[in-house]
Amino acid sequence: MTSKAAPLRLSTTSASFDAEFKARLHWSADADAAIEKVVADILADVQKRGDEAVLEYTRRFDGLGATAMSELELTQADFKEAFDSLPAEQRDALQAAADRVRSYHEAQKKASGESWSYRDADGTLLGQKVTPLDRVGIYVPGGKAAYPSSLLMNAIPAHVAGVGEIIMVVPTPVKGSVATGGAGGQSSTKGERNVLVLAAAYVAGVTRGFTVGGAQAVAALAYGTATIPAVDKITGPGNAYVAAAKRRVFGTVGIDMIAGPSEILVLADGTTPPEWVAMDLFSQAEHDELAQSILLCPDAAYIDRVQAEIDRLLPTMPRAEIIAASLNGRGALIHTKSMEEACEISNRIAPEHLEVSSSEPSRWEPLLRHAGAIFLGAFTSESLGDYCAGPNHVLPTSGTARFSSPLGVYDFQKRSSLIEVSEAGAQVLGPIAVTLAEGEGLQAHAEAARMRLRKI
Amino acid sequence: MTSKAAPLRLSTTSASFDAEFKARLHWSADADAAIEKVVADILADVQKRGDEAVLEYTRRFDGLGATAMSELELTQADFKEAFDSLPAEQRDALQAAADRVRSYHEAQKKASGESWSYRDADGTLLGQKVTPLDRVGIYVPGGKAAYPSSLLMNAIPAHVAGVGEIIMVVPTPVKGSVATGGAGGQSSTKGERNVLVLAAAYVAGVTRGFTVGGAQAVAALAYGTATIPAVDKITGPGNAYVAAAKRRVFGTVGIDMIAGPSEILVLADGTTPPEWVAMDLFSQAEHDELAQSILLCPDAAYIDRVQAEIDRLLPTMPRAEIIAASLNGRGALIHTKSMEEACEISNRIAPEHLEVSSSEPSRWEPLLRHAGAIFLGAFTSESLGDYCAGPNHVLPTSGTARFSSPLGVYDFQKRSSLIEVSEAGAQVLGPIAVTLAEGEGLQAHAEAARMRLRKI
Repeated sequence: MTSKAAPLRLSTTSASFDAEFKARLHWSADADAAIEKVVADILADVQKRGDEAVLEYTRRFDGLGATAMSELELTQADFKEAFDSLPAEQRDALQAAADRVRSYHEAQKKASGESWSYRDADGTLLGQKVTPLDRVGIYVPGGKAAYPSSLLMNAIPAHVAGVGEIIMVVPTPVKGSVATGGAGGQSSTKGERNVLVLAAAYVAGVTRGFTVGGAQAVAALAYGTATIPAVDKITGPGNAYVAAAKRRVFGTVGIDMIAGPSEILVLADGTTPPEWVAMDLFSQAEHDELAQSILLCPDAAYIDRVQAEIDRLLPTMPRAEIIAASLNGRGALIHTKSMEEACEISNRIAPEHLEVSSSEPSRWEPLLRHAGAIFLGAFTSESLGDYCAGPNHVLPTSGTARFSSPLGVYDFQKRSSLIEVSEAGAQVLGPIAVTLAEGEGLQAHAEAARMRLRKI
Repeated sequence: MTSKAAPLRLSTTSASFDAEFKARLHWSADADAAIEKVVADILADVQKRGDEAVLEYTRRFDGLGATAMSELELTQADFKEAFDSLPAEQRDALQAAADRVRSYHEAQKKASGESWSYRDADGTLLGQKVTPLDRVGIYVPGGKAAYPSSLLMNAIPAHVAGVGEIIMVVPTPVKGSVATGGAGGQSSTKGERNVLVLAAAYVAGVTRGFTVGGAQAVAALAYGTATIPAVDKITGPGNAYVAAAKRRVFGTVGIDMIAGPSEILVLADGTTPPEWVAMDLFSQAEHDELAQSILLCPDAAYIDRVQAEIDRLLPTMPRAEIIAASLNGRGALIHTKSMEEACEISNRIAPEHLEVSSSEPSRWEPLLRHAGAIFLGAFTSESLGDYCAGPNHVLPTSGTARFSSPLGVYDFQKRSSLIEVSEAGAQVLGPIAVTLAEGEGLQAHAEAARMRLRKI
C-alpha cells in the first residue's frame, strides 16, 4: 500500500524543463481494435433487430432478465419516488444545485442563444433563428462512476434550451454481471438503481428513462427502436464502449466531446492556505489514476509547504490510493520564474479546470486565453464549481479548450440562417452573384440571380 | 447524351409515399478502407518527417517539383497581385461580397459571441469569457471545385472572430498530375494557381498560404512542421482523402462538419414564376450528380409548369449533363395536400437549403424547425445567399440541420466559464457541495469545499 504522493518537481529554469513537461502531459487514447469490433457489431445488431437486441445485450452484460422493454422503462413516478425518498439534506442540496445550474444556463441562453435579425438599407432581412433540438439522449454511467451531478449538468442545459424530450439511459447492472466486472450468468429482473441519479432526473426535467447502458443504449438512441425513440443528439460520459459507440454514430446524431482524463491546473501566488491547494489537487486526483493535477507557482518555499500538506493530508483521505497513483504518475509541482510565466504555460496546456489561487485573480485572468473553466480567487475551489456554483462541469479536456467550450445551452440549440432578399435588394445583389458564379463556372447559379433582375 | 431531366414525381396521398420518399432521400457515405489506409499512412509520415514528407507527397500527387518549402509558400504579395490583376468587375464583386459577408458576421458576433458575466446576491461572479482561436487552417480545394466564395465564407468569420493567424492551404497541381486525374510523372516548379482564390485570400484577411493539398496538408496543419505552423482548428471542404484526414485529426485539432452532397428543398405555393423555381433546382443540381433538388407544392398544375420549364431550360445550360444526372437520380417533385404538410415534410428532411417560394413566407417560416438556411420569398434565390447576401454558405447537410448550424463566428471562438466565489458565497455553496460530493463518494471534493467554510 502506497501512502506517499510526490508529484514530479520541475523548474522552468531547468534546461530539460520543456522535454520533461511535455512527457508529463502526454496522454493518448488509442482506439482499441477489440472494442471497436464489439461496438460495431452491437450497433449493427440494434439497428437491425431493435428492442429484441437491446433486451438481449442487457441480459448478457447487465444480468437484467427483462423479457419486455416495459420492464426497462423508468417513469416520472420512479423519478419522483426516488427524490421523495432522499434524506432532507440531500434533497435540498440537489434542488439548490439544480436551481443554481438552471439560473446560470438561463443567463447563458439570454446572452448568446436568442434569435436575431436586421434589415439592410434595401429592406433585405438577414438573421439567425435559434431553435432547440427536438429530442436528446443523455447517457448516465451506472456503477461506481454514477454521478447525479453529471446528469444535472447534461439535462438542465437541454431543458433550458427548450428541448422537447430528454431521454435518459442508465445501466442498472445486477451484482456479478459482466458490466460490474463479474463473470456474468447472474440474472434478476431488477438491477441496482442509483437513487440519487433518479432523483436528479426528477429535478433536472428528464422526460423518460430506460435502464439500458453500453453501446446498445447508444445504438437505440441513435437509430431508435419500437420503444426507445431516436434522438437528435447524445451527450454524457461513459466507458470505452460508450465512447466508441458515440464516435461511430456521430453524423447520424450529434454528440458532445469524447472526454479524456480530468485535469486541474492551479496557478498559485502563495497567498492561499497551502492545505487548500493540496486538497484541490487531491480533488482532481481522486477521480482516477489517470487524472492530472498540476501546480504552477513562482514561490519555491510555498511549493514545499503544499508538498508538506500533501504528506499530512493524504493518509486522511478514503481514496488515498487513487490520489497517490494519480499524483505520482501524472502530477507535477512546477516552479516558475513569475506568475506571468505561469499564465503562459497554462495557455500552452489549455487545462480543463484552471484555478487562479491568488489574492489578485483579476490581474491574471486577462492573460489566460485557453481553459474550460477559470476559478478565480482562493475561495473558488473547483469542487464548488463542480457541484453548485452554476456553470457547467462538462468541460473540454486534453488541451481541447484551445478550440472547444464547456457544455452549454448552445449545445442543445441549432441555428438556421434567415434571408429575405427584397425586390430592391435582388437588383443590387444580382449582378454581384452573377459575376462570382460565372467566375466559378456555375451558370445556373448566375441565371437564377439574373432572373430576379427587374426587366426595365 | 441525355438532355431530359425528369425528377421523380411523388404525391403524399399515395400509399407508397413514405417508402418511395425515404428511398429517394437515402444517401450513405461509407468509409472507403483503401482511402483510410492511405490517409493514415500519410498522417503518420507527415507527423514523423514534417516538411520532407510534405514536399514528397506534393511532388508525387500534384507534380510540383519544389525542393524547399519556401517554394510552396504564398505571400501577402501574391494575394495582392492576384487581386490587382482581376478585371474591375470581378474585383468589385469579390469586394462587395466580402463586405456583406463581413457585416453579417459582425452582427452575428455582437448577437451571440461576446463575453458576459453577472454577480449574484453573495457577490459571486459567474459568466463566460469568449475568446478567438489562436490559429486556424482553411482548406481550399484545387482544380474544378476551386470556389473563391468558399474561401470567403470560411476565412471571414475567422477574421471577424479575431483569430490571430489564418493559414490557407490550396493544392496547385500540375496538369497531368495524379491530383488532376492524370497518370503522374509530370513535374514543374509551379502548378496551376487559381487567381480568384488568391484574390479572395486578399479580401478575406488570410495571413499565410501554402500550395499544398490532400491529406498531407491536413496533417501539416494538425501536427505542424518546421515551416507550416500547427493550428487549433481546420475548416473547409475537400475530397474524400481530405475528409478522411480531417476525421482522423479531430481531437488533436477542431474540425468543421464533414459535408455530404448539397441539397435544396423548395416549398412553393405556386405564386413564383415557375422558371425561377426550375432554375433554383438547377442551381443545386449543377454542383454534382449526387446533389439533391426537391420541390414540395400543393398545386399539381404548378408542378407541371415547373417540369415544363425544366424541359425548356435544360438544353440552355452548360452543365446540362450534370443537372440531368442529379435530377433524374436524386431529384423529386412532390405534390402535397397543403403548404402545412409541405412544412412538416421539410422538418423531417432538415434540408441544407430551404427556399420558401411563397407570397407569404412569414406565414410559413414559424412552422419550419430544421434547416441550414431559410430563403424567404421569391426574390431570395439560393444563389444570392450563396454568394453575397451575407450569411454563411457552409451549411449542415444530410439532415444534420436537426442538430447543427451554419459555419459562423462561433466556430472560431471558444468559451471559458468564469467563476469567482466570494467568501460569503463559499459559506452558502460549501454545505451543498459537501452533501453532494459525499453522496458521490468524492471526499476530497467535499473536504476542499469544507476548508473554505469560515471557522466561527
